[in-house]
Amino acid sequence: REKPVNGLISEIESVLNVDQLAILLESFPIKLRTDLWEILSDETQQNVFIVMKNESRQLLLDVLDDAQCFPLLTKLDAFNLLELSESLNDRFIDYAVSNMTAKQRSLYKKSCDYDLSEVGHWQNFTELQIPQRLKLSAVKKVCAKSLPAFTDVAYIVDDNALLVGEIAINGIFNATDQQQYLTAINQHVEFIDSNNNISEAAEKLINSGKSALPVVDDNGCLTGRLDLPTAYRYKEQIIETQLIQSAGLVEEEDLFSSVWLSSKNRAVWLGINLVTAFLASWFIGLFEATIQQVVALAVLMPVVASMGGISGSQTITLIIRGLALGQITEANKRDIIVKELKVGAINGLLWAIVIGVITYLWFDTFLLSLTIFIAILGNIVIASLSGVWVPWVLSRFKIDPALSGSVVLTTVTDIFGFIVFLGLGSLLLL
Amino acid sequence: REKPVNGLISEIESVLNVDQLAILLESFPIKLRTDLWEILSDETQQNVFIVMKNESRQLLLDVLDDAQCFPLLTKLDAFNLLELSESLNDRFIDYAVSNMTAKQRSLYKKSCDYDLSEVGHWQNFTELQIPQRLKLSAVKKVCAKSLPAFTDVAYIVDDNALLVGEIAINGIFNATDQQQYLTAINQHVEFIDSNNNISEAAEKLINSGKSALPVVDDNGCLTGRLDLPTAYRYKEQIIETQLIQSAGLVEEEDLFSSVWLSSKNRAVWLGINLVTAFLASWFIGLFEATIQQVVALAVLMPVVASMGGISGSQTITLIIRGLALGQITEANKRDIIVKELKVGAINGLLWAIVIGVITYLWFDTFLLSLTIFIAILGNIVIASLSGVWVPWVLSRFKIDPALSGSVVLTTVTDIFGFIVFLGLGSLLLL
Repeated sequence: REKPVNGLISEIESVLNVDQLAILLESFPIKLRTDLWEILSDETQQNVFIVMKNESRQLLLDVLDDAQCFPLLTKLDAFNLLELSESLNDRFIDYAVSNMTAKQRSLYKKSCDYDLSEVGHWQNFTELQIPQRLKLSAVKKVCAKSLPAFTDVAYIVDDNALLVGEIAINGIFNATDQQQYLTAINQHVEFIDSNNNISEAAEKLINSGKSALPVVDDNGCLTGRLDLPTAYRYKEQIIETQLIQSAGLVEEEDLFSSVWLSSKNRAVWLGINLVTAFLASWFIGLFEATIQQVVALAVLMPVVASMGGISGSQTITLIIRGLALGQITEANKRDIIVKELKVGAINGLLWAIVIGVITYLWFDTFLLSLTIFIAILGNIVIASLSGVWVPWVLSRFKIDPALSGSVVLTTVTDIFGFIVFLGLGSLLLL
Repeated sequence: REKPVNGLISEIESVLNVDQLAILLESFPIKLRTDLWEILSDETQQNVFIVMKNESRQLLLDVLDDAQCFPLLTKLDAFNLLELSESLNDRFIDYAVSNMTAKQRSLYKKSCDYDLSEVGHWQNFTELQIPQRLKLSAVKKVCAKSLPAFTDVAYIVDDNALLVGEIAINGIFNATDQQQYLTAINQHVEFIDSNNNISEAAEKLINSGKSALPVVDDNGCLTGRLDLPTAYRYKEQIIETQLIQSAGLVEEEDLFSSVWLSSKNRAVWLGINLVTAFLASWFIGLFEATIQQVVALAVLMPVVASMGGISGSQTITLIIRGLALGQITEANKRDIIVKELKVGAINGLLWAIVIGVITYLWFDTFLLSLTIFIAILGNIVIASLSGVWVPWVLSRFKIDPALSGSVVLTTVTDIFGFIVFLGLGSLLLL
């Protein structure tokens, strides 16, 4: 029974790359996942371990004993360990560090000084450095020996590792004498400071049209480079994290995370939501007497709430994108509000008429129809305005609007909608 | 008054790159945007025009007269025009084509044969091609002259443009004689078929760890390459489009799109939503008599609906990601449902108790408290299950669950919640 399984596994290992293997593993429940894991070759285990999701890696470390865990950590370089360090406990990190070469260890220690939001944490150390004192023939030999991926230029450094220039790879091979070589060196290098914010640095690199930018420390010394795959992976991770967190999930929840962990993670968001739901209920409760006499108001409440919610979420989606791109400022805020007000008025009027007519046909009461007409018009307009000011205010208080914007917005439109609808109902229908 | 403005503009042009200029322009209302546009230099206009959002480009073409539009189109190459062709009308496309070099024109015509979903549409033509018959010395000269960005390897083609191998750039410079050069050529090139699906090809390239992959046609001839920035930009665009469309907006709506256009775009989603809202209302209407006698039921309806909605959206977010990664199959579907069922039961029980107690304290009626206890427990469990089957069924019918999943889900949880809550209320409280 062993044979065909082994054949199958070596087949899988040859067909799938490590990223695909990680995704495959994550689509198995824990028990099966561990079985599959154990028949992978040691080398594949080491490689897949690096690219797994944080939570999947944790799940794996939890079920494996130490003798199985340690081999996974023997081949990590500084860049890999930095990526994993969040999800490994100190025992494992110490082990991985002790197994590094002296050079990787010192690179790791240096990068650890940087915060997760700083470029220094994300740099890699595969850049091509050329000492300034090297002669052209020696430089050519260095480049001919090996060029790391994503290397369009080599960086020239002086004896103190100071970044003094860069030269295109073809410039090196094109030069026939020392003079030509020196002329081809560009001394105005576009670089990134290792203390820069990683989001801004990633944007800068992507906009530069280059495949990597050099990273320098406070003294102007070259410490590494930020490459395009890292910049894009960082951006993707941010978008993914926002998506997951805006549903009240914890970053990178695994399809088969333990039931208790999943329940705990999700309970928090349900609790926050419960507070806002009871708030809406409390406002409805103020109109108990009215509802008792005009039950149609209770019947139509979902229509008022949901039309407001949708209008608001359409506006907030545009505004959140605009804020993320830095397109929304004090200067154009007024124009944006005026535009959303107009759009809200047009759609408010349209749907207030439609809903008013349907309500009249259903309940045959003109005043009820008038009540919902006004409530829908008002709620859609208010929702469009709130779609602008809610994310604006949240971002002023340094709260990510992509995360909590829609909860706040729905609370506002629900409560406003219910007050207008039930309040008007009390005035007109009692 | 002209002078300082011109100084300011040339300052802006020197500080901002074209992407940043496009974002800046898009943060102005149309009138101001046109004014700013007109004082940009011709060259900047041409470059910014290429990177704008489709809708912003359209807005601009609408306000400019033809004499101003045509110069924007004179310098487009095949790759650029392909990117723009969706948002330009035929008159402009014909003009741009007629202004191309013969080579770019033939590349454009060739790429036009491909569908937007095929790699052929997305390839660019900057790859380094080396004829097979060239001797090493000539090859070295070609490479020394110029290397396009993102070029880690050169592609070797025979006289019929057939892709026969690839060689790393350093391999070329490392070779000292013809024999070494020929040995360094890798004949098993990883390539992409021009008819391949662009999503899968982009994934393949990103996973390959290379900065570009060659694109070949049905005959095995090299037609271009897919580079990493294009692959990532494609992925980003897909995610952005999903986000925007899932709010019922039209792709790439501009902050200052015309009021009528914005209203029209958003009205469709509001209309779809209205149908589902009236459906919920209709079910509530079935219990009018009950609500009239126990108004507290109406007061608590938002709590039942919203707890179900949130639970469902947490599950659906995970499942949609799992489906997108291909992690959810017939084989593990049952395990996922069992897990979500357990998580739903735990959170359902927890919050049903909390809400039951709060309801008892508020209304002091044990049977009302029992009613909402059962309704919340049931709705959270059903919502967790629906979070799995709704996207599953939608994707079976080739409907993108990221787009319409949450509308369907909320409709299910609203209606189920109201029926259980009001139905039980009728049984226990009347």
